[in-house]
Amino acid sequence: MPGSTRIIPLGGLGEVGKNMTVFEADGEAVVVDAGLAFPRDEHLGVDLILPDFSYLVDRDRPVRAVLLTHGHEDHVGALPYLLREVRVQEVWATRLTLGLIKSKLDEHGLLRAVELREADPDAPPAELGPFSVEFVRVAHSIPDAVAIVLDTPGGRILHTGDYKLDHTPVDGLRTDVGRLAEIGNRGVDLFLGDSTNAERPGVTGSERLVGEAFRQLIPPRTGRILVASFASNVHRMQQAIDVAVEVGRKVCVVGRSMRKNVNIARNLGYIDVPEETLIRPNELDEYAPGDVLILCTGSQGEPLSALVRIAYGDHPAVSVEAGDTVIISAKPVPGNELRVHDAINQLARNGAEVLHQEIAPVHVSGHGHAEELRTMLGLVRPKSVMPVHGEFRMLAAHARLAEESGVPANRIVLAENGSVVELDESGAYLTGHVESGVTFVDGLGVGDVQDVALRDRRHLSEDGVLIVVATFGGGNGSAGRPELIARGFAEPGEPLLDEMREEAERVLDDLVRDHVTEIKLLQEHLHDGLGQLIYDRTGRRPMILPVVVEV
Amino acid sequence: MPGSTRIIPLGGLGEVGKNMTVFEADGEAVVVDAGLAFPRDEHLGVDLILPDFSYLVDRDRPVRAVLLTHGHEDHVGALPYLLREVRVQEVWATRLTLGLIKSKLDEHGLLRAVELREADPDAPPAELGPFSVEFVRVAHSIPDAVAIVLDTPGGRILHTGDYKLDHTPVDGLRTDVGRLAEIGNRGVDLFLGDSTNAERPGVTGSERLVGEAFRQLIPPRTGRILVASFASNVHRMQQAIDVAVEVGRKVCVVGRSMRKNVNIARNLGYIDVPEETLIRPNELDEYAPGDVLILCTGSQGEPLSALVRIAYGDHPAVSVEAGDTVIISAKPVPGNELRVHDAINQLARNGAEVLHQEIAPVHVSGHGHAEELRTMLGLVRPKSVMPVHGEFRMLAAHARLAEESGVPANRIVLAENGSVVELDESGAYLTGHVESGVTFVDGLGVGDVQDVALRDRRHLSEDGVLIVVATFGGGNGSAGRPELIARGFAEPGEPLLDEMREEAERVLDDLVRDHVTEIKLLQEHLHDGLGQLIYDRTGRRPMILPVVVEV
Repeated sequence: MPGSTRIIPLGGLGEVGKNMTVFEADGEAVVVDAGLAFPRDEHLGVDLILPDFSYLVDRDRPVRAVLLTHGHEDHVGALPYLLREVRVQEVWATRLTLGLIKSKLDEHGLLRAVELREADPDAPPAELGPFSVEFVRVAHSIPDAVAIVLDTPGGRILHTGDYKLDHTPVDGLRTDVGRLAEIGNRGVDLFLGDSTNAERPGVTGSERLVGEAFRQLIPPRTGRILVASFASNVHRMQQAIDVAVEVGRKVCVVGRSMRKNVNIARNLGYIDVPEETLIRPNELDEYAPGDVLILCTGSQGEPLSALVRIAYGDHPAVSVEAGDTVIISAKPVPGNELRVHDAINQLARNGAEVLHQEIAPVHVSGHGHAEELRTMLGLVRPKSVMPVHGEFRMLAAHARLAEESGVPANRIVLAENGSVVELDESGAYLTGHVESGVTFVDGLGVGDVQDVALRDRRHLSEDGVLIVVATFGGGNGSAGRPELIARGFAEPGEPLLDEMREEAERVLDDLVRDHVTEIKLLQEHLHDGLGQLIYDRTGRRPMILPVVVEV
Repeated sequence: MPGSTRIIPLGGLGEVGKNMTVFEADGEAVVVDAGLAFPRDEHLGVDLILPDFSYLVDRDRPVRAVLLTHGHEDHVGALPYLLREVRVQEVWATRLTLGLIKSKLDEHGLLRAVELREADPDAPPAELGPFSVEFVRVAHSIPDAVAIVLDTPGGRILHTGDYKLDHTPVDGLRTDVGRLAEIGNRGVDLFLGDSTNAERPGVTGSERLVGEAFRQLIPPRTGRILVASFASNVHRMQQAIDVAVEVGRKVCVVGRSMRKNVNIARNLGYIDVPEETLIRPNELDEYAPGDVLILCTGSQGEPLSALVRIAYGDHPAVSVEAGDTVIISAKPVPGNELRVHDAINQLARNGAEVLHQEIAPVHVSGHGHAEELRTMLGLVRPKSVMPVHGEFRMLAAHARLAEESGVPANRIVLAENGSVVELDESGAYLTGHVESGVTFVDGLGVGDVQDVALRDRRHLSEDGVLIVVATFGGGNGSAGRPELIARGFAEPGEPLLDEMREEAERVLDDLVRDHVTEIKLLQEHLHDGLGQLIYDRTGRRPMILPVVVEV
């Protein structure tokens, strides 16, 4: 009996972030990645966004394994939340990724919640129920990234994870194109490929280009040097450290997540820094500005990050002054541009020269551009293609590249989160849809903030709120003098407030005269009367909350 | 007696937008530009941002003249608001700029509020009180842009406005480098120069490069072609029209502001399009998709713009389908990236191919890069330099370019909005500060929304609002059952609401038992008790508004 496999992406399609894909066959499931997304401005007050795990929660049997491609938050950040809701037998990841998630699970008190297994690209395939799993090294902006090959009842599947074809990566662990070609020769029935930069022509620069820029920019400088990057970009930090060692600067790591990651990476041998080079933030005072290089968080302009606190003179150990140089070695994630610009301006006000990716070659992407995706498709020669990891325009561009590479249009699957894709010997097809979506983490709550709360927050944020409290009834059935509280649209003492109070009294008096006593009706009339008055006077529509209390 | 001139920037320094600079001598004032800025996400609900005009409002005498460099909103958009608050004798602008502001003043019912004078770069200097004024052609992303030369008692001043050194502009009206050199030879005491792209190395591409891209991209396409750009970018529209005429496509202009601007520009001879080429939106149905080119607004992903409505299938006349091509011929203004990306994704979902500046050469900047700024400084050889138009990092980069060009560091003035700069024969110096800042336009209100309202909106937007209404007193002095209304943080029916109501009752009962009757105190205790409970349970801090009504 020929088998079949179901592929169900729960995140990462039609978006950049919260990557997660379920593979099912013979009643067993493995999941590739469990990532989170960061809120956009429209997600007012939300802290994190997770995939909706309902589909996995509702399954009868535990998930056989979660397989992680690399340690970035958009691939592993939802793991603690997943483990709280869904039974998972094993989590597989490479050494560095394991180190990073161990620390994360420890913070959530979940270190003993699941068996952790080391994924080794050089080991023979792991047999996980009906799935035979291999890991293949790929280069990315964090070490120890892998693609995943799944031999399944429905066919052989290659999931690239995030990758670029860097032939000169900093750790020497390049994308294993030989192995990919060999897998292509064996035959790949379905290819799931990173689409992030599918629209961009040409090839990404090698990570080494950033090291070359550091080597040009850093030696001639005489003041402090700060290098801000993602806390997970171990290669980037290594390259800055290498130049610091060459020019005899001490290196100081600032920012909680970066200190944590540097420790993990050093302990596991992924960062090489001489003991005498590293100094602690409280030792900075003992060195001249020209003798230090500071690695710090804040490359996205995050409000509480080290770089932003430094820029605003609010950091206990580090300040910036004329003669200093700040290198922002990252690109703003879309939506963070203004925050990054604000940080740059504030650093410039302090007198620092700020080098950033718009004006100096201090950053390269971790995702392959179109020519790299073409090369990958050429190596793998898949029978069917399903673009993953990206907004729709990126998935569509990846689909065009696949078609150009010779994959027939009817073998290209443009799926979305929640799509059910069936793979069998005849090909890969969209066959249905399961529950999917987003779960908001807000404060301590996971999933309790819903769209309606966000809609209310949005309404409140546009024009503020007006509360009208009126008493009603009592001995003579008349209405008391209404109290008004306005927040976010009118200042106390404004004539409009008096006018609104008079309008509220008029509305109530009219209704009382007409013997209307139903509280709901009184509230409705107050709402409409005041809303009209405010709109006529100001052109605004604050949220109006009338409260009529019967006494 | 040697004279002096005061230069007071009221907007555009430390920011991109709302450009406005006051020049004063012998009790008279002229103002260069009166621009507005668009709100950022943090300006919740605000529609427009104006410079604070207080300094001009408080002057005894009317402003002698407002001189406009070009017709972009960040240079002319605040003019109607300025004319309502400040007496202005004349407004000077070139022909197209006059056409654009006439339409704007007409909308505000202000057409007769001020004398409009045509600025002619070929005319002799205009004498405006103590100021002798000349206009010099510069190339920019709108036709008819000028730099302004002011001969003043304190010395000769050149204000560039926005410019690039495009030697092959579409209208043939290039930056008049010969005239600038001649003015440099006469001697410029103070140079105020556009800093927008001072950080960017090299030179901006010529506007003609976009025409060349259109000429490559448009002819081979067979479906609809949409070109979205700024409604003011007359050159861009002309180039798209030229290609449409060449390939025999009809041109349809969609979007209110673009239709208005095309009309104005055609009437004044700034756009050349054969009568038979133009069709109206309601005629589109009569043509095959391959026979039309649609010029439309929405290049910034504005929610109600033509392109966004088209993308979401919500436009009465235009739809987009597989085979169509959308060219977004603009760069997202920082802060608009996500909205533009959303529009691209939605268009891609409809099957269109979307070409935008990240992946195709369909846009060039209207602001000169560093090499152009260097060339300008070389032509003008100013004695003193004051960078304008830009965030601080851009002003600082411009200052570095000036210093490299040979201007002594003590002759470079890094001013900010509200700075008073004195120019006399000894140089230009910061000597003081006047009131400056922002005025918010929100709905019909100008200036009535203040920072405190925005702070309240921000608080409301983060975690929502909780209103507690309790009655108190009456016959027995006891408290009634409190009513709770939550918006934006808890769903109706949530157990937390019951818990909060119990907490409110407990707080009130305790206080009543202790004979506390002061309403303010009761409200404070309710606020603190509920705030703590909510924070402990949810980690959130909604705005809490307690209302205790004495009955």
